[in-house]
Parts: sequence; structure tokens; C-alpha cells
Amino acid sequence: MPMRGAVIHRAGDVRVEEREDPAILEASDAIVRTVATCVCGSDLWRYRGLAPVPEPVPIGHEYVGVVTEAGAAVRSVQVGDFVIGGFLHSDGTCVLCRKGAQANCLHGGGYDGCQAEAIRIPNADGTLVSTPGEPDAVLIPSLLTLSDVMCTGWHAAVSAGVGPGMSVAVVGDGAVGLCAVLAAAQMGAEQVIAMSRRAARQRLATAFGATAIVAERDDAGAARVRDLTSGVGADAVLECVGTESARLQAVASVRAGGQIGVVGLPHGEMPTAELFWRNIALRGGPAPVRAYLDQLLDLVWTGQIEPGAVFDLELPLVDVAEAYRAMDERRAIKALLWA
Amino acid sequence: MPMRGAVIHRAGDVRVEEREDPAILEASDAIVRTVATCVCGSDLWRYRGLAPVPEPVPIGHEYVGVVTEAGAAVRSVQVGDFVIGGFLHSDGTCVLCRKGAQANCLHGGGYDGCQAEAIRIPNADGTLVSTPGEPDAVLIPSLLTLSDVMCTGWHAAVSAGVGPGMSVAVVGDGAVGLCAVLAAAQMGAEQVIAMSRRAARQRLATAFGATAIVAERDDAGAARVRDLTSGVGADAVLECVGTESARLQAVASVRAGGQIGVVGLPHGEMPTAELFWRNIALRGGPAPVRAYLDQLLDLVWTGQIEPGAVFDLELPLVDVAEAYRAMDERRAIKALLWA
Repeated sequence: MPMRGAVIHRAGDVRVEEREDPAILEASDAIVRTVATCVCGSDLWRYRGLAPVPEPVPIGHEYVGVVTEAGAAVRSVQVGDFVIGGFLHSDGTCVLCRKGAQANCLHGGGYDGCQAEAIRIPNADGTLVSTPGEPDAVLIPSLLTLSDVMCTGWHAAVSAGVGPGMSVAVVGDGAVGLCAVLAAAQMGAEQVIAMSRRAARQRLATAFGATAIVAERDDAGAARVRDLTSGVGADAVLECVGTESARLQAVASVRAGGQIGVVGLPHGEMPTAELFWRNIALRGGPAPVRAYLDQLLDLVWTGQIEPGAVFDLELPLVDVAEAYRAMDERRAIKALLWA
Repeated sequence: MPMRGAVIHRAGDVRVEEREDPAILEASDAIVRTVATCVCGSDLWRYRGLAPVPEPVPIGHEYVGVVTEAGAAVRSVQVGDFVIGGFLHSDGTCVLCRKGAQANCLHGGGYDGCQAEAIRIPNADGTLVSTPGEPDAVLIPSLLTLSDVMCTGWHAAVSAGVGPGMSVAVVGDGAVGLCAVLAAAQMGAEQVIAMSRRAARQRLATAFGATAIVAERDDAGAARVRDLTSGVGADAVLECVGTESARLQAVASVRAGGQIGVVGLPHGEMPTAELFWRNIALRGGPAPVRAYLDQLLDLVWTGQIEPGAVFDLELPLVDVAEAYRAMDERRAIKALLWA
């Protein structure tokens, strides 16, 4: 039976097409009927022609939905459960998963396109988490952020060792950067400096807990961060973009002995000799969503955080092309697609 | 009045010469009559022609000795005290010192050659620590290691987040690498894998707490480390050399989600994109000796650790040239010079 799903054909060309309905292939698989999915900043690398698209492929890696079928070996979720899963699946049992490195699971990987009406989830037991009950519709955007951006912002803060009393600067005012602001504030940072030039994003950063906004970029931006941090730079910098300029901005904004948490897909090198001489830590990568999911689901479910505010555009799945355009043109911070 | 001190003239040419006796220049200075000093692996970069020597300069940055004169502002040490100081001086009061980044003190720096009979110590209050009393001669080598190598090995382990139960691999079997083995064992690592091909160093590593020795290098060495660590690599790798091959060895030997502590002076880049995709932390730099000195002095003074075992050659200061030759030719792990 066919379903509808997004396929990227080439830069600038994402279409909803009829695709084969997913089916259980392994006993550890589950099938999820998507309730909501969204477009990620990382999807834009291909959309903008900055990463190759050798052939048309299904796209998307964020989702919440309802389990419609579970393989014979699946124990932790049941048909009918409302579930969230990370942007990578993981078995939860390998030595790396047990050490909290679920994004690097020995038997994990990606999906066959989550901007779709249904998705096959490998390693369902290690990947999916059921909500405590049927969520109110108003919670769904925030739950959806746990599939990637909120956990990724959280990972930036964890990777940079953010804790009570610290000064934190966030490079990047996309959805991940805004979630990183929220994460740093939740972790008790005393100063949370959001680097953003756009009024709507500045407002959201402030709502998420930013204590200062720096609109300047590059050297001027780093100088402003130093002005705000006893002249030396922030204890922690959360790099949520990945471009070379953002990475260098992070290095210029952190104090000696400080820590950089990196979650933006890396494009461009880092000055590792400077990191050494200034005793700066560099840590991060793809977020181990499953490591954070229980804690963050609780924060969302109990209304302590509302990361879903990053969605400033909601469209039906069939309008996926407009979702990409709006994000590419920066008309939207992040676009949610109702499936 | 003249004193004797080592001067490097060019690669391969270190001589003891008569130099002017140091004098108090600032009220925060102290003068230390050197009891013992030593040659550092990092001194060999210049000795081997791998770092430039534009003109003859005094050399050496490790010392223990007795305070012979203290500036008017010095409060924490007194004339007659036996003292240890780190290889960089630091004021102890700037914002970076207060955050534990004393190696990056805003008002700190190096010395005018510590392989000498006497040394001017700027920032004496923030730099020098007095021993609880006059040390037994047998303790002096271990106390001397606190000026650099033992604290540097400790910094590698701290930077890599070593803690109880972890698997740790140490790249480099020089004095710093051996001290890093000792540090990891002290911190409760369950596995401490020393990478070394030389029997004498293997024995010392074992005495310092290594649980396994890997003699292989490069890919074969990393494969052996993985064999010893559930197939995935060590939780933490301590990189104590600095060459590109040692740095790549560290990356190849660490598990995804693990941490690399770097203390070898960096020569060559790091594959930062691989660090990202594998979620590997990179942290380290010049050791903030003062941050560790109280704790490590206590461990040495009470006989809990004996890092002075790294000195396998002791010479009078006048034989400094032989000390460099012996280390350059790897006849000695580390040479102590009695002043």
C-alpha cells in the first residue's frame, strides 16, 4: 500500500511522492504512523547544494507518532503507544550504548526518510520512548523537538560541561542554538549569552533564558562576549552551526581553560594548536538522544520547558517544499509538518 | 656576582656558562637557590632542531630549591623555605587563575632559564609552594617532578576525565607518559594500558600501575588497545608526545564518546571532523601546575606516590650537555641535574 513521503531530488528540489508503506523487516523493528515531523537545519546542507545528492532519496530524521506494528522481539513499546525516537536508532545494548554513546551505537544508523506518513524504526527497544499517555496536541511540537533539536542543544551544553554559576555563550540562533540557550539556562548557568542578529530569534532566546544578546559577529562579537565575561571569554561556548566562521567564533569567544560544545555539522577545521595552548576543551558530535530522552520528556511533559516554541511555521506534510523554502530563506526558524 | 647556568646556542649545543646572579626586580619576586633541576622532553624540540633557536638563550623550566631572597610583597613563602614551582609562573589572583587555569594566567609566563644555580621567580606568591619541612634527599627527585612532568601527566588524566572503573591508554613512554600512567592508576582507572616498546620503561610503567603493555604502534597498536577494551577502544587516551603520529594514535585508540587528554606539545593537526562524528572529546594543554601542587605534594610527602623514579640519570649541573645527549639518544628517560 502506498504512503506519502518527502524525497530530495537535487539541491532546491524536495517533493512529496507516493512511496511503499514501510513493513517490519527484523523482529526488532516497529512501524510508526507519523503524527508530526519537521525540517532540520542539517537537511538544508543538501537543499542548498552544500552536500551532494547523488540520486533522489527520502529525507527527514525527526518524528513523533503512534506505533502501528511491532516486531516479535519488541518489548519496550506497544501498538498504540505515542512514541518519540531520536534521529539515529540505537540498540541500547552494545558496549557504546551502555556507556551513553548511543549516537555511535555499534548496530545503529539512520532511517529511510522520516518526512513521511509512516516510518520503519529499527532497534525499536533501544530507540523509542513512549509518552506517559496520549499527549495534548499543544505538547506535540515540544515532544517533536526531543527527536533532535532539543536533545542536540542539550548535548552541546553537556559536552561543554555547563553547570551552575557558569558563563555560557551560544553561537547560532537556529532551532538548535535556541534549544542550547534553553539547556544552559536549565543547567543553572548564571550568564547565557545568545549571539543573534534577528529580533524574533532574540526574543525567543530571551524567553528561553538568555541573559544577554550579542548581535555582533566575528571579532566584534567575540569582543562583546569578553566584555560580558570579565574580559576573558565565556566558561563554555555552545557551537550550534558548524560553519568555519561559527567554529572560529566559538574559539574566539571562550576563555582559556574553558570548553566548547560542538553540535553543528563540521564544515572547516579547528585551530587545534590554539586550543592546546589556551587549554580549551573541544567536545561534541551527533547527540545521543536516547541518553537524554527520559529526563527531557519529563521536563516537557510537566511543562517545565517548552522547546516547541522553536516551530514558527506549521504546514501539512504535502507542503514540504514550502517548509524547505521558508527555512532556506530564513522566513522560518523551524518548520513542523503534520503528517 | 656570577652564577652558572645552561644556555642553548643552537641545536645540539647546550653549555653551562657564567651568568649574572638573578636579583629581585619586582616586589612580588623571590630568588630561589636551585637544589635540583632537570631536562624536559620539550627542551629536546630545540635541541633536536625541531624548534628554532634564533639566538643563544638560557634554558630549563623545572626546579626545586631554597628561597634566598623575597620581594617586599611576598607573603606565602619565606627565606629558607624549600619550595617547588611550576614550569610557568602565575599570580594566583587573576580571573583565570581563580578558575583553575593557572597555566594561562593573565600575568604569568616563563622563566629566564631554570637549569641554573639560582632563579628569579616572578609572582612568587601565586607560584611557589613550600614543603612541610626540609625534605629528605631521597624525596627530592619526586618533588622535582611536581615542577612539570608529574603535574603534566596528571593534567592529561584530568583533561581526559579519568575516573574509577575506566579503561585508559597512554600514548608515550617518556617521563610524562609514565607519570600519566601513575596518575590514571591513582585516579582509580580499572585498566591502564601503557604503550611502550622499551623494557626499562615497560617495567616502570608496570611499577606505576599499568595493567597492560602494548608494544605495537600505529594501526597495530590501536588494534591491540581495542582488543583489550571490548573491541571499541579506551574510555580515555592520554597523549603525552605531541607528534602527529602520536596524536593520530590517540584518536585511533579511543572509543566513540571517549576522551583524549593532550599534553604533548602539538606538532601536526588533529582530524577534528572524525572527533565530531565519533563524539570524542579533546582537551588539554600546558598543565596548571599550581592547581594540582597541594594534592600531589601531599601524595609525594606521605610516600603514596614516587614519581621521581622517572629519573634514571643524575648528574651535576656542569654536565648538562651529557644530560641532553643521554635523553636525545634515549639512553635516559629523564636526567636530573644537581645544582
